[in-house]
Amino acid sequence: MSEEKLDATIEKETGHKETGRIEAFSDGVFAVAITLLVFDLKVPPPSALEAISVAGLGKALYQQWPSYLAFITSFATILIMWVSHHSIFKLVDKSDKPFLFANGLLLMLVTVVPFPTSLVSTYLTTPAAATACAVYSGIFVVINLAYNLLWWTITRHDGHLLNPAVSPAQVKALTRNFLLGFPVYLLATLLAFWNPYITIAICSGLWIFWALISSERIPVTATSLESRM
Amino acid sequence: MSEEKLDATIEKETGHKETGRIEAFSDGVFAVAITLLVFDLKVPPPSALEAISVAGLGKALYQQWPSYLAFITSFATILIMWVSHHSIFKLVDKSDKPFLFANGLLLMLVTVVPFPTSLVSTYLTTPAAATACAVYSGIFVVINLAYNLLWWTITRHDGHLLNPAVSPAQVKALTRNFLLGFPVYLLATLLAFWNPYITIAICSGLWIFWALISSERIPVTATSLESRM
Amino acid sequence: MSEEKLDATIEKETGHKETGRIEAFSDGVFAVAITLLVFDLKVPPPSALEAISVAGLGKALYQQWPSYLAFITSFATILIMWVSHHSIFKLVDKSDKPFLFANGLLLMLVTVVPFPTSLVSTYLTTPAAATACAVYSGIFVVINLAYNLLWWTITRHDGHLLNPAVSPAQVKALTRNFLLGFPVYLLATLLAFWNPYITIAICSGLWIFWALISSERIPVTATSLESRM
Amino acid sequence: MSEEKLDATIEKETGHKETGRIEAFSDGVFAVAITLLVFDLKVPPPSALEAISVAGLGKALYQQWPSYLAFITSFATILIMWVSHHSIFKLVDKSDKPFLFANGLLLMLVTVVPFPTSLVSTYLTTPAAATACAVYSGIFVVINLAYNLLWWTITRHDGHLLNPAVSPAQVKALTRNFLLGFPVYLLATLLAFWNPYITIAICSGLWIFWALISSERIPVTATSLESRM
Repeated sequence: MSEEKLDATIEKETGHKETGRIEAFSDGVFAVAITLLVFDLKVPPPSALEAISVAGLGKALYQQWPSYLAFITSFATILIMWVSHHSIFKLVDKSDKPFLFANGLLLMLVTVVPFPTSLVSTYLTTPAAATACAVYSGIFVVINLAYNLLWWTITRHDGHLLNPAVSPAQVKALTRNFLLGFPVYLLATLLAFWNPYITIAICSGLWIFWALISSERIPVTATSLESRM
Repeated sequence: MSEEKLDATIEKETGHKETGRIEAFSDGVFAVAITLLVFDLKVPPPSALEAISVAGLGKALYQQWPSYLAFITSFATILIMWVSHHSIFKLVDKSDKPFLFANGLLLMLVTVVPFPTSLVSTYLTTPAAATACAVYSGIFVVINLAYNLLWWTITRHDGHLLNPAVSPAQVKALTRNFLLGFPVYLLATLLAFWNPYITIAICSGLWIFWALISSERIPVTATSLESRM
Repeated sequence: MSEEKLDATIEKETGHKETGRIEAFSDGVFAVAITLLVFDLKVPPPSALEAISVAGLGKALYQQWPSYLAFITSFATILIMWVSHHSIFKLVDKSDKPFLFANGLLLMLVTVVPFPTSLVSTYLTTPAAATACAVYSGIFVVINLAYNLLWWTITRHDGHLLNPAVSPAQVKALTRNFLLGFPVYLLATLLAFWNPYITIAICSGLWIFWALISSERIPVTATSLESRM
Repeated sequence: MSEEKLDATIEKETGHKETGRIEAFSDGVFAVAITLLVFDLKVPPPSALEAISVAGLGKALYQQWPSYLAFITSFATILIMWVSHHSIFKLVDKSDKPFLFANGLLLMLVTVVPFPTSLVSTYLTTPAAATACAVYSGIFVVINLAYNLLWWTITRHDGHLLNPAVSPAQVKALTRNFLLGFPVYLLATLLAFWNPYITIAICSGLWIFWALISSERIPVTATSLESRM
C-alpha cells in the first residue's frame, strides 16, 4: 500500500482510536498524581513531639490539620478535573498536534498540584500563608487556562475534532463552564493577600459546587456509542 | 442528532461502559497506593547504627519489625479492598453522580492508608503506640463506612444501578458483609488505648478472615457476561 | 436469572476474563514498582561534597556506583519477573482463591524490591555489606518461592486452571525453570557472608542468563488465541 | 493441540497482540516516570527562609527557578519520547527477544530521567553546574542510542517485525529522525563544560523543535488498522 493510501485509510477508519490511547495515558498520569498527594501527609518525627505519649502524638497530629485540609481539597479538585477531562474526551473523535500538546500542558499542570498542596500544608499557619495560598490558587488559574486552551483546540474550525453527534448547544454549555472557573480562581488568588483562609474556602467551595452542578449521569463516549450504531 | 436523542441512545446503548472506565481509574489508584507502601520500609541510616558491621545492620533491620508488620497488614488489607471493589463493580451496570462521588471518597481513603501505616511503623514500640494504632484502625472504620455508602448508592431505589441478573439474595449477603466490618474495626480502634498490639492483631486477623470467607471463585462482571449473551 | 444459573453461565462464558483483570492490576503494580527504583538514585547534597565544583560533583556521583549497580540489577530483575508473570498468565484460563492470593503474595514481594536495593546502595562499600547483600538476595529467594507457589496453584489437580491447549511438556519445562532459581539465589544469599560482590554478581548473572534462555518469541496468551478460534 | 501447532497458530493469529501488551506496560512506566518529576519541586523548609513572611517565601520560591526550568524541560522531553515510542509501536506488528530487551533498556533510561533533573535543579546555580548539565544531557545521548537500538531491532532482516503496510520511505524517514538527535545531544553534553545554560537551552530547544516537526496528525496503529480491514 502506498504511503498516501495508508494515511487516507487510517484517517477514515481509525481516527478516534488515537484519542483512546491519549486518554489512557492521561488517566495513568491523573491516577498517579492523585495518589502522590498522600506524601503531603507526614508522620510527625518523634523528635518534634513535646512528649512521646498518647496525648503528645495526638496533639502533633491535630496540629497538622492544614495538611488534611490541603490534601482533601487537592484530591477532590484533581478528581473533578479527571471527570472534566473525560467529559471533553467523550465528545472528541479525532486528534491533531495542537490538541495533543494542549493535553500535554494540562497533564504537566495536574502533576504539579502536589507541590502547592505541600506548600499550603507547610505554611498555612505561618505569616507566609498568603504566598502559599496565592501559589496554590494560582496553579488552578493556570490549569483553568489550560482547559480552555484544550477546549479551543477542539472547537476551532467549527469543531473539527468533535464527534458529529455533538450539538452546538452542548459545545456552548461546556465553553461557558470552562470560562467560569477563571475569574473565580483569579479572585481566590488575589484574596490570599487579604485572608489566606478565604482562598482555601473558595477552592474548596468550587469543587463542591462543580460536584453539585455536574450532570446527574456521566455522558458516555461518543466514540464507543458510534462504534455500536 | 438532537441532544436529547443522543442522551437517550447513550443511556440505552452504552450505560455500563462508563463503570468500566471508572473501574480502570480506580484500579490505577489502588495499584499506585499499594506500591507506595514500600516507602514505609526505610533503610537505617549509617549514622543510626551502633556499629556499621554485619551484626549492627542486622540488628537495626531486626528492630524495624513494626515496619514489616504494618507493611504486610496494610498491603493485605488494600489487596482485599481491591477484591471487594471489584466484587461491587461486577454487579453494577450503570453509574450516577452519588455513586461516582462515593467511589471518589473511597479512593481518597485508600490513598491515605500509607500514612497511618507509617505512623504505626514509627510509634508502635513507643509510649505513643495507642494513638498511632487508633488512627490506623480508625482509618479502616472510615473506609468501611465509605464502602457501605458506595453500596447504598447502588442498591437504593430497588438497586437502580445493579445489573438485573443480580438476585436480592446476593444483595442481602453483600450488605451484611459490608456492615460486618464496622463494629470490628471500631472495637479495634477503642482497644488500642488498652493494648495497641491487640489492634494490629485484629486488623491482621480481619484480612485473614476475609481471605478465607471470600468465595472460592471470583464472580465475573455481569457486564462482560451480558455483552456475550 | 437465579443465582445458580448466573454462576453457571459465568463459569462457562467468561472464566478467563477474570485473569485478564488480575493481570492488568498486576501490570500496574509492576510498572509502579519498577519506576520507584529511581528513588534509589540520590542527588549528592551540596553539603556532602568535598568542594562544590565540576570535579567535586563528578567524584561524588562516581562514588555512588553501588547505587547504579543495584538500580540496574533490580530493574532488570523486575523486568524479567514481569516477563515470567506474563508467561504464566498466558497459560492460565481460570482463577480461584489460592491462585489469587499466591499472586497477591508475589506482588507484595515485587513492591518490596526497592527496599533491599536501597540497602545495597547504602551499605555495599561498608563493613555491613554482607547483611545488605544477603537481604537483597534473600528477597529473591522468597520471590522465587512465591513463583513456585503461584505455579503450583495453577498446575495442581491436573492443571485445573490451565488452558486445555497447554501440553504437559510445556508445564514440565516451566516447573523446572521456576525450581531452578531457588538453589542459585540461596547460594548467592549464603555467599554474601564470604564476599558480598559475589552475591551481586550472581544476581546480575541470573537475569542475563534468563534473558538469554527465554524463548526467542514470546508466546501469546492462550486466552486471546482461544477467543479467535 | 500439539505444542508446535499451538505455536504456529499463535504466530499466524495473534502476533500483534503481544506488542499491545508490551506497549501498555511501557505506557504505565512512562506515566509514572513523568509524574514522579514533581518530586523535583521541593517546598522550601521554613528553616531555609530568611524570614517566614509573604516576601520571604516568595523570594525562596523564586530562587528555585532552576527546578521549574528542569521540571518543564524533562516533562516535555518525556512527553515527546512517549509520542516517539508510540510512533514506533504503531508500525510494529510482531515482537521478538532483542526487541523486548531493547524496549526494556529504553524504559530503564526513561525512569532514570527524574535523577539528572534533580541534579540540575540542585546544582544549576553552583560552580558544579557543568557536571550536572553534562549528566543531564548525557542521559539523553544514551536514550537516543536506545531509541536507535530499538528501531534497529525492528528494521533489521528487511523489517521483519514491521507491519507489511509500512513503506520503505517511512522507515527511511524515521531512521533519519532517530539518528538526528544523537549529534545534537552529544554537542549539548560537551558544551556544558563551556556554558551549562547552553546545554539546557539546547535540550529545551530540541523538544520544541520536535514538537513542531512532528506530523500534524498522529499516525494510527497499523495493527488496529489491519484488524479492521
